[in-house]
Amino acid sequence: MSQFLKVKTADEVLGIIKKIEPLSSESIALETSHARVLASAVTAPESLPHFNRATMDGFAVRARDTFGATESLPAMLELIGEVAMGESVSLSLEAGKAIAVPTGGMLPANADSVVMVEYTYNLDEKTIEVIKPVAPGDNVLRVGEDIENHQNLFPAGWRLRPQDMGLLAALGISKVQVHCRPRVAVISTGDEIVPITGDQPPPGKVRDINSITLAAELEEAGATITIKQVVVDDLDALVTAAKSALVENDMLLLSGGSSVGARDYTLRILEHFENAELLVHGVAIRPGKPTILARIGRKIFWGLPGQPVSALMIYRAFVLASLARLEGQADISKLGGTPVRATLKRQLPSVQGRTDYVPVINSREEEKVWASPIFGKSAMIGILARADGFVIVPEHVEGLEQGSEVEVHLFSR
Amino acid sequence: MSQFLKVKTADEVLGIIKKIEPLSSESIALETSHARVLASAVTAPESLPHFNRATMDGFAVRARDTFGATESLPAMLELIGEVAMGESVSLSLEAGKAIAVPTGGMLPANADSVVMVEYTYNLDEKTIEVIKPVAPGDNVLRVGEDIENHQNLFPAGWRLRPQDMGLLAALGISKVQVHCRPRVAVISTGDEIVPITGDQPPPGKVRDINSITLAAELEEAGATITIKQVVVDDLDALVTAAKSALVENDMLLLSGGSSVGARDYTLRILEHFENAELLVHGVAIRPGKPTILARIGRKIFWGLPGQPVSALMIYRAFVLASLARLEGQADISKLGGTPVRATLKRQLPSVQGRTDYVPVINSREEEKVWASPIFGKSAMIGILARADGFVIVPEHVEGLEQGSEVEVHLFSR
Repeated sequence: MSQFLKVKTADEVLGIIKKIEPLSSESIALETSHARVLASAVTAPESLPHFNRATMDGFAVRARDTFGATESLPAMLELIGEVAMGESVSLSLEAGKAIAVPTGGMLPANADSVVMVEYTYNLDEKTIEVIKPVAPGDNVLRVGEDIENHQNLFPAGWRLRPQDMGLLAALGISKVQVHCRPRVAVISTGDEIVPITGDQPPPGKVRDINSITLAAELEEAGATITIKQVVVDDLDALVTAAKSALVENDMLLLSGGSSVGARDYTLRILEHFENAELLVHGVAIRPGKPTILARIGRKIFWGLPGQPVSALMIYRAFVLASLARLEGQADISKLGGTPVRATLKRQLPSVQGRTDYVPVINSREEEKVWASPIFGKSAMIGILARADGFVIVPEHVEGLEQGSEVEVHLFSR
Repeated sequence: MSQFLKVKTADEVLGIIKKIEPLSSESIALETSHARVLASAVTAPESLPHFNRATMDGFAVRARDTFGATESLPAMLELIGEVAMGESVSLSLEAGKAIAVPTGGMLPANADSVVMVEYTYNLDEKTIEVIKPVAPGDNVLRVGEDIENHQNLFPAGWRLRPQDMGLLAALGISKVQVHCRPRVAVISTGDEIVPITGDQPPPGKVRDINSITLAAELEEAGATITIKQVVVDDLDALVTAAKSALVENDMLLLSGGSSVGARDYTLRILEHFENAELLVHGVAIRPGKPTILARIGRKIFWGLPGQPVSALMIYRAFVLASLARLEGQADISKLGGTPVRATLKRQLPSVQGRTDYVPVINSREEEKVWASPIFGKSAMIGILARADGFVIVPEHVEGLEQGSEVEVHLFSR
């Protein structure tokens, strides 16, 4: 194992994460594909629409038959019938004729436009007056005007949104090839950690926070959590738990403990895997410096700080990106949402050479968004529960002045 | 039924939505409570931490014993032992004594601070030198310093985030009282609509898009979808489907059709419910004007445009907020995420008296975010698949100039 004790910058860690290979892929039903990531590019198998459609209620016409029409000199057209919604029309429109058509209805051959019903009068059952000319294509969606046959729709690595699913549905693509969902095991370790109970733990013990917060984040990101457990700080127990967790899972998040030497435990666990490759051992960020990232074969091992605030911040800063890469997402630059611009309400001290993640509360005053840093000991989970998001103070900056423009990364919901 | 044909503004519709009463509540396990909305306020049942904890590795001391200590004139303290991680300490620290303590470990009585190990030397097994003084409270999280007993944690109507769950876990709150998840039925109607098939539908017919896009949005919002079906434009069939859907569900989304008179169908369906109250019939927004909102007892009925782009925009503009209100969310002003500020790349024409929702593509150039409106016929679902979000042009504005500052509401993922 290499990389021992060489603390990396946040950007270096993200660079390593970008190289994570995606999981294999599977074919799933389109209706279950929300937020899944395409394993291959998708092109249109047909044109959309596949027949000329009216986009307004009115009359299908040949545009040239309406040229020059005005209120005082209307164009008179013979009304030859009505297109029923959802029905095919086999006839071809001859010069001087019109046919009633509803929004979404099919145009007959030779009709190139639709006159809106508002610009017509019915003279009698067989005749309409058109009082405003239309140009070819007006109020019509032509074959392929929305999507052309064989057009590129989405590249591989694209995460499907509801409207993307709608487009695929429109084109009859009822199955999609997507990368598998990452299966993740979450282990909290520390002699002081006990599972959540209503009874107050004895002095010295605290309840497990990390497995509940990390599991909620992981589920939000679309991972499947197979294991959530607390393991005591005992090397044999930890090695057994880690080995067992990695049989079925693609990723292991091992958090803790904060006791002296706990960091070494995580490294010593890795030594028990023949093919473990240590990628990161310490990151120059606060909170969360004692973070470990390793690859065990194709599986990802995260050693997270035991302190709950640090563990959540490291999740946000890095783990989420590693999950997205396992899922095959090509662009991981916008994960966690686009940050919101705000003005710093108080000065924010920092140290050069370290990236700081500082929780903030947002408020709106005088048409402006203000970000107020929440100070306090980093062990306080209460701080994160009050925060709307966090500000990143980059490593080359020695603090930010009051009134500075900052970007607030919002916590989800 | 009142409100017939009085088109409402977007703000008026949101005002009506804000008055929707929340569903009843249920008690659920904390670990399943992510993104659920609290039905009652939560206060702390105990202090956090419930014992004085070290936040650094070092030695628990009485601060006054270190006053004036320097490298050249260190304070000498008797080392009386070591606190084991997770263990309770019953002894009380006497003057001139110190005890080793790990990060997160418990402080003995009378110890008020921790000297970091970096500022000490071990003279022998029984004696340490302290070379820097500490103040009371340094490197210690005192009882109740994170959260005080009986402190207000979250108000009713608060949607739980991962860190909020972590705080509740830390305090031993393993069950929470939350509003029930809305159960929703989605019905697509229209004689032209057919279920998704690989085979191209006959000319005149198109595949159902709305049930797949709306279901994906609803699931993202935490609703449970019990029914997804296509019903032909037949009043009896629609009334039967709507009545059956509302037996088990809290909300019905009925979209379509775009055929002439389809709007009347929706109103005529409502006439078949004795207790239907029409709240909105038409909204001054584009796309999506022919939108209907009604209350049937405590149940919510949405008549959405059949056109897929309009249906999705109305979902974003209004349906999401109505779901959040059913779930009891108090603040619905930030639904759909905080918008991103951008500069308009092209002029955006609009009409006074109507709110426009215009899809845009975001790009980054010269350190700025640019929003490029996508023009095209509103029936084109391909436009939404290309868009990153949308810009709202308010009703009192007659278009926006190129270079204007706008807010882009981003589509999820």
